[in-house]
Amino acid sequence: MAVKYNTDFLGDVISKDEWKAMAPFTKEAFRMVKKGSGAGNDFLGWVSLPDDYDKEEFARIEAAAERIKGSCDIFVVLGIGGSYLGARAAIEFVKSPLYNNLKKDTPDVYFAGNNISPTALTELLSICEGKDICVNVISKSGTTTETAIAFRVFKKLLTDRYGVEGARSRIFATTDRARGTLKQYADECGFETFVVPDDVGGRFSVLTAVGLLPIAVAGIDIKELMRGASEARAAYSSENLFKNDVLKYAATRNILYRRGKSVEIMVGYEPYMLMLNEWWKQLYGESEGKENKGILPASVVFSTDLHSLGQYIQEGRRDLFETVLSVKNPGASFVIPEDDANVDGLNFLAGKELDEVNKTAMIATLFAHNDGGVPNNLIEISDRSPYSLGYLIYFFELACAVSGYLLGVNPFNQPGVESYKKNMFALLGKPGYEQEGKILRKRMK
Amino acid sequence: MAVKYNTDFLGDVISKDEWKAMAPFTKEAFRMVKKGSGAGNDFLGWVSLPDDYDKEEFARIEAAAERIKGSCDIFVVLGIGGSYLGARAAIEFVKSPLYNNLKKDTPDVYFAGNNISPTALTELLSICEGKDICVNVISKSGTTTETAIAFRVFKKLLTDRYGVEGARSRIFATTDRARGTLKQYADECGFETFVVPDDVGGRFSVLTAVGLLPIAVAGIDIKELMRGASEARAAYSSENLFKNDVLKYAATRNILYRRGKSVEIMVGYEPYMLMLNEWWKQLYGESEGKENKGILPASVVFSTDLHSLGQYIQEGRRDLFETVLSVKNPGASFVIPEDDANVDGLNFLAGKELDEVNKTAMIATLFAHNDGGVPNNLIEISDRSPYSLGYLIYFFELACAVSGYLLGVNPFNQPGVESYKKNMFALLGKPGYEQEGKILRKRMK
Repeated sequence: MAVKYNTDFLGDVISKDEWKAMAPFTKEAFRMVKKGSGAGNDFLGWVSLPDDYDKEEFARIEAAAERIKGSCDIFVVLGIGGSYLGARAAIEFVKSPLYNNLKKDTPDVYFAGNNISPTALTELLSICEGKDICVNVISKSGTTTETAIAFRVFKKLLTDRYGVEGARSRIFATTDRARGTLKQYADECGFETFVVPDDVGGRFSVLTAVGLLPIAVAGIDIKELMRGASEARAAYSSENLFKNDVLKYAATRNILYRRGKSVEIMVGYEPYMLMLNEWWKQLYGESEGKENKGILPASVVFSTDLHSLGQYIQEGRRDLFETVLSVKNPGASFVIPEDDANVDGLNFLAGKELDEVNKTAMIATLFAHNDGGVPNNLIEISDRSPYSLGYLIYFFELACAVSGYLLGVNPFNQPGVESYKKNMFALLGKPGYEQEGKILRKRMK
Repeated sequence: MAVKYNTDFLGDVISKDEWKAMAPFTKEAFRMVKKGSGAGNDFLGWVSLPDDYDKEEFARIEAAAERIKGSCDIFVVLGIGGSYLGARAAIEFVKSPLYNNLKKDTPDVYFAGNNISPTALTELLSICEGKDICVNVISKSGTTTETAIAFRVFKKLLTDRYGVEGARSRIFATTDRARGTLKQYADECGFETFVVPDDVGGRFSVLTAVGLLPIAVAGIDIKELMRGASEARAAYSSENLFKNDVLKYAATRNILYRRGKSVEIMVGYEPYMLMLNEWWKQLYGESEGKENKGILPASVVFSTDLHSLGQYIQEGRRDLFETVLSVKNPGASFVIPEDDANVDGLNFLAGKELDEVNKTAMIATLFAHNDGGVPNNLIEISDRSPYSLGYLIYFFELACAVSGYLLGVNPFNQPGVESYKKNMFALLGKPGYEQEGKILRKRMK
């Protein structure tokens, strides 16, 4: 098992009887996912994806990634939300948060089209000066404002620089299979296209072309990523909570929530986990935060944030629990040097692996936070390999669906995301929003 | 006023009478700060710092920054918590989150010694290969584990590369004025030293040498930063809540908290605000999160995170409020291009400034979240200048102290941060922790 769920640090808060009491419901929730009998059942494509993905398209993704690697210095990925976080999380987790700053034989990868910042766009264009570029635009409809604006800019840049023909071979569109303006336009222009499946929502899409193309361009073995997810699918098939860690984690979250623990803090002990935390926050926050309920997902990277949010977690309001993600094999060795001066008094650490100190800090913190009244889930992942990451992704996706059903919500919709968009279009004068515009402008006095 | 506090988007939740009812208490809390009559009053050095700082040292900081700029490609800053977040926040806010990737005539700035990650340290060393380096170690005592380990490594690197003499001119120690092993060692070795004042806690230290040296090396005018803070100090001198935005913000936070709004989400609309959010989270979380109380500080960058946490904020549990930070003058112009194909249907935006769309998204979201039951503070800052940032820093610091006293805590201590450290030292076998070590090892079975 590449992923192990450890409940030793929950403290004494959950008895075996409580998990037993939840078992019939996790079983039922899991059946809703497997049989498609719950709300949002037209978005269950991710369940079987690790085995049933489109092999022909997968081969095209691998081939496109090879061409991209050979033809550009910078790969610009345009997408927002689920069309952004998964790929970035995977590249940082498997490669590095400093991926773009390290020497390597794969292109730099920059993510844009995920904000409306004039400075961010201006700066990225300056970074692209004198570099060869390929672009991946990711949008199911093609009309997502942030992504579409950035695509206008980069399409023009590529056409100006490489001509229509040249741009054609450098633009890749990940979009709807058949409908949508972007699909139509991409076909007209001759861009290679990849599919955002109809039955996979954005936050569950990292193992589709949405995530796979940028991940492959960064030199990560996407076959291994899928293999990990597939083995996780097989491993997490039992309907018995005591034999299926996915169900146990989902149950634990709901037990803690009902007990007033309304904030879950995802904890990493490596800077390369920061964006994985962000991916997880969208997955859980967007799936469960509705109907005035849901656990608020937050995140930290320790030991860094032990020196910022550590005080709050140790002694603040007791409505928190943590889920700690620990990578067993750090993949790097660093021995703490002896220092004759011993100014810092740390020679008792000399000769130790830095990772041993890091892991000790983790155990120390698990005890400290437990003693402070904060239950801790501990999720142990074998290493930073794409295989293990694929395994973990599937663990979190499946647990999210089960947990959402346990909470009594549709884990696959996101009705609240439209509210700001509607207001924005109205205030920007988008055709069709005239009435809303009038009302809002009145509220602004 | 470089900073304006706008309460128009709180919704109808707070009446003028409620603020009136708080006014005597904000007055008293402010007096406790000014007179030093409250708990933690030996840590009030930051109050008068913008005017009463050490001018001789300030000139030395500016001179050292010039020398560093002229003698290295990479400036490595070693520090954690308050010895890390302020400088990084300022550099990203005034310059860019992509500062290290942009062309410029100042050194790259990398922050290390803020984690225990072997991969992070290994990668930074690989980035430093073949580059000229200067190092700033920031630690009051010199014994902070994360920072001290990194300092061992970089001190050795510099000595190996430049010899003892060469390293001497490239290492800068920001530490205690007189005591502490690092101060003593730095003097012995002949490193230039700067002061972490006794009466300024880490999270309030960005306007001391702790923050100022790295900020100056990045080419930011630190005189302007101090001038902004100084003018804020003068502007926020009234004891009347209705004439002092600092008191009004502090009162509002406490009113909302008592009403069950236990999470404050700091919202930026530019990627360059991400680390400022982190600085703010330490400031407020560490000051208020104690005695089982305090508002949990969280953060997002919109519109990016409207596509991840937006759903939760719009429709999840209603124990949230937001504080939106808006920069009036974006400092960059970007006009949305016309596109003949108009695939995205966004030609109605063609010719508009991107910043106008960004600001409209903000107004749209303020209304949407208000309608969803989330009160919003709006803090408007004139621009990204160091002057305005200095102003904002002082606003937040003063409001934090007042808010902490209103909550009934000592805003200047952080007793909970020691818990994990004590366990860690015990488990690592640090001399003097033998007994704790035994107990903990027993708990591990």
